[in-house]
Amino acid sequence: MNDNELLDDLQNGYYIIQRSDGFKFGIDAVLLADFAKCRAKKAIDLCTGTGIIPILLAAKTKIAHIDGVEIQPEFAEMADRSVKYNDLQDRIFIHECDLKDAPSRFGKSSYDLVTVNPPYMKAGSGEVNAGDSKSIARHEILCSLDDVVRVSSDLLLPQGKFFMVHRPLRLVDIFCAMRKYKIEPKKIRYVAPKPGKEPNLVLIYGLKSGNPELKTLPTLYVYDEDGNYSKEIDEIYGRR
Amino acid sequence: MNDNELLDDLQNGYYIIQRSDGFKFGIDAVLLADFAKCRAKKAIDLCTGTGIIPILLAAKTKIAHIDGVEIQPEFAEMADRSVKYNDLQDRIFIHECDLKDAPSRFGKSSYDLVTVNPPYMKAGSGEVNAGDSKSIARHEILCSLDDVVRVSSDLLLPQGKFFMVHRPLRLVDIFCAMRKYKIEPKKIRYVAPKPGKEPNLVLIYGLKSGNPELKTLPTLYVYDEDGNYSKEIDEIYGRR
Repeated sequence: MNDNELLDDLQNGYYIIQRSDGFKFGIDAVLLADFAKCRAKKAIDLCTGTGIIPILLAAKTKIAHIDGVEIQPEFAEMADRSVKYNDLQDRIFIHECDLKDAPSRFGKSSYDLVTVNPPYMKAGSGEVNAGDSKSIARHEILCSLDDVVRVSSDLLLPQGKFFMVHRPLRLVDIFCAMRKYKIEPKKIRYVAPKPGKEPNLVLIYGLKSGNPELKTLPTLYVYDEDGNYSKEIDEIYGRR
Repeated sequence: MNDNELLDDLQNGYYIIQRSDGFKFGIDAVLLADFAKCRAKKAIDLCTGTGIIPILLAAKTKIAHIDGVEIQPEFAEMADRSVKYNDLQDRIFIHECDLKDAPSRFGKSSYDLVTVNPPYMKAGSGEVNAGDSKSIARHEILCSLDDVVRVSSDLLLPQGKFFMVHRPLRLVDIFCAMRKYKIEPKKIRYVAPKPGKEPNLVLIYGLKSGNPELKTLPTLYVYDEDGNYSKEIDEIYGRR
């Protein structure tokens, strides 16, 4: 552990190392890992950051091999230490790598599961400092949505599963990119702060070479009307 | 009024003639007309059926000219009688016409508002009787989603508004068709039977030549948790 790092208890027997002053994983990663839990032989998590999604997936599933790809060296190195701290180095493999190189490096059509919690914001939007690791995690500076979906499609086997979390305001971009690269959106679930509020996240499940027909699940509310965490959120976080 | 017809009170001073044994307007038309109320100079309603949307729009807005296009002669004739019964013949103009001919007949880029409650189901899906008026209203037998969006785009002025109601399971098809024909989806609202249930309708607002960025409104529930109509539904139906 370095001076500017914290060890967070994931409440499931596992821990994660995070920068005390840097980008930390959020509810989006926790919800994505829960939404993506499924049977798979070989998974890859793009934009893995601290390695939170591979570690949560390892806890929630029996997947034997999970690659985690991260372009920022400081995150990749920290994620690798978290994997070793949890003694998961026989299941999770962290790679410091540009996701655009992943298909040539790890093999096209070689995964039955891809997860990704990508940067949500377009490169030109909001305050951006291109050299700042938080900005890189949040803005499409080093990879675009088109890159993420194209690479995911290249990595997936036919009928392979794709899970992504993103902002609802990008949903048209997301659906159009997925169809362009032959990952058919099959199921979505919105996440809203509480009943009556607009959703601020959307969980998306797509199937490589799947047939068109989208299922929309009931919205997941983070808080109930009384301001307490909803029952479902407590269950996802392992608090019930 | 013919023998097999009923006169329904719309609870807003207007009435509509419907076949007692045929396709009747549903909550989707009522919700679309409410969602679509806006300032506009000249509107056109495609797949107008009984003429319900032009009549509700006339009640809810000050739009001076609303064309209604219907391909099935028996519906067009009935809609025309409803318009006259309500003394709206100086604002609503029903045309028996294939919507694919609408741009050449009524003029490209000549409307600032298009509304449409199109057939929801693909031609090959479910039980279809191609000669049956209910099947034509529900299935893409005489027009496809692609036709509806292409024609709407042709009819709209730049920055003209497009409002459609459809099934959530077609949302990917809808967004891709809208972007293809340069009507950018700007706002959607799901409609679900009650809290905790999956949505079964989606209201969509698009802007001709608009910029990408989608707003997702809180879901509209038809019934509350006690099984009563929700307050908002009562308001839309004019019961509060």
